[in-house]
Amino acid sequence: MARFFVEHLPDSGVEYTLTGENAEHAKVLRLRAGEEVTLCDGRGMECPCRVEAGLTLRAGAPLPSPAEPKVRAALYLAFPKADKAEHVIQKATELGAAKIVLFPSRYCVSRPDDTSLAKKLDRWQKIARSAAEQSRRGVIPAVRALDSYGQAIAEAAQAELPVLFYENEEQLTLREALAEIGTPPHPSPAATPSPQGEGFVAAPTVSLMTGAEGGFSEEEIAQARAAGLKICTLGPRILRCETAPLAGLTAVMYALGEI
Amino acid sequence: MARFFVEHLPDSGVEYTLTGENAEHAKVLRLRAGEEVTLCDGRGMECPCRVEAGLTLRAGAPLPSPAEPKVRAALYLAFPKADKAEHVIQKATELGAAKIVLFPSRYCVSRPDDTSLAKKLDRWQKIARSAAEQSRRGVIPAVRALDSYGQAIAEAAQAELPVLFYENEEQLTLREALAEIGTPPHPSPAATPSPQGEGFVAAPTVSLMTGAEGGFSEEEIAQARAAGLKICTLGPRILRCETAPLAGLTAVMYALGEI
Repeated sequence: MARFFVEHLPDSGVEYTLTGENAEHAKVLRLRAGEEVTLCDGRGMECPCRVEAGLTLRAGAPLPSPAEPKVRAALYLAFPKADKAEHVIQKATELGAAKIVLFPSRYCVSRPDDTSLAKKLDRWQKIARSAAEQSRRGVIPAVRALDSYGQAIAEAAQAELPVLFYENEEQLTLREALAEIGTPPHPSPAATPSPQGEGFVAAPTVSLMTGAEGGFSEEEIAQARAAGLKICTLGPRILRCETAPLAGLTAVMYALGEI
Repeated sequence: MARFFVEHLPDSGVEYTLTGENAEHAKVLRLRAGEEVTLCDGRGMECPCRVEAGLTLRAGAPLPSPAEPKVRAALYLAFPKADKAEHVIQKATELGAAKIVLFPSRYCVSRPDDTSLAKKLDRWQKIARSAAEQSRRGVIPAVRALDSYGQAIAEAAQAELPVLFYENEEQLTLREALAEIGTPPHPSPAATPSPQGEGFVAAPTVSLMTGAEGGFSEEEIAQARAAGLKICTLGPRILRCETAPLAGLTAVMYALGEI
């Protein structure tokens, strides 16, 4: 079913006409009268609609996006090289990330200047929007950049479970870190009858921070620990900088009953 | 620490000289006398060595590769387009796949002919080898191709837990499928003191099958179910064909205490 992100959802029963990029997209799809499509506000609410004719839809009753995870997982990525950021943003959106924040760190090889960063952010946000449409997300993850590592750890630390994955950490597992916040890391099938994870009392917030190609310095790890981040291992296999955030995000989604 | 895959590990205490590609690689790395490197047979055993001079090493005692997961997880991928196969092979190796098998299916857009397949397999195997070196794997996953979907499901079905991820399945979760084989899907931290997953009594075998861009036909799903594969959901978000196998593999690794 086609999916369009719009600024504001129409009230139930009201006529709505697709415009701009959505109209272009609809023309490519050759929507036919009677067909069902979904309008989504990109902030977690959506509304099933029926095509009346051309670009004109009749709105149904809005509802929370059923594919949206309950956990709010934010990724914090040290700027990676070239197209790796695009890759992670696309995949993290499919996998259910709530937001994606990039930041510089000591060993970053790639640190875009202000002009190129503005262009990149614009492009990255479009990638997130397109991946959200394709994967049936109800939220388009915001893609942002911060000026410093200090800002990144301060913001990440505000989550109920702030995790930094570090290849030299060998002890603390993600499972143990999840257990510490008291979130049920392993809900029984009975408690989670559906993949959406019903049965959880609250939607936890999780921050997952990963390094660039060069990893983090020991000072950066100490700084993150002091700010309250849990320094975790992702297991004994060394993951590339574009693999680690997606593996961490997938594991969190599985642990919290979202996969 | 540098890592070299060799055909046969030397006996403990014996002198060993790097040759061929390993020698080239060692020259690039500019190994110095006294430095420690690892020789690995690519089948799960490795041996720490000390550089004596140039390309000559002194072998230590061989041991099972510590980064190798206990679970043997095989991926079965319907041929995807272009470079997606390369991407999945590289990432699946990092994440701990035991083998990677490609096969044709009804809606495959890309189905290489015999000549180009032979070249591709050669290239894919090199990608797996290089990713295994980089991620400290002890096993180089074999990359193979099968002639038919029927062969793929027959082979996949031999695992203790054969799973096919299907976007139209909404009920059976991977967690429930893992529970069915009696493998502890959620070991307590006490039972798994390390990410390697010690504490498990046996190494389960798992097959994870995913479709190409066009997905599977209903007939193919019925055929897989009849062969004994568990048809599972990966959650309500629709994952691209290159994202699904890696998400499934990561979730299995987390569930079995390998992450």
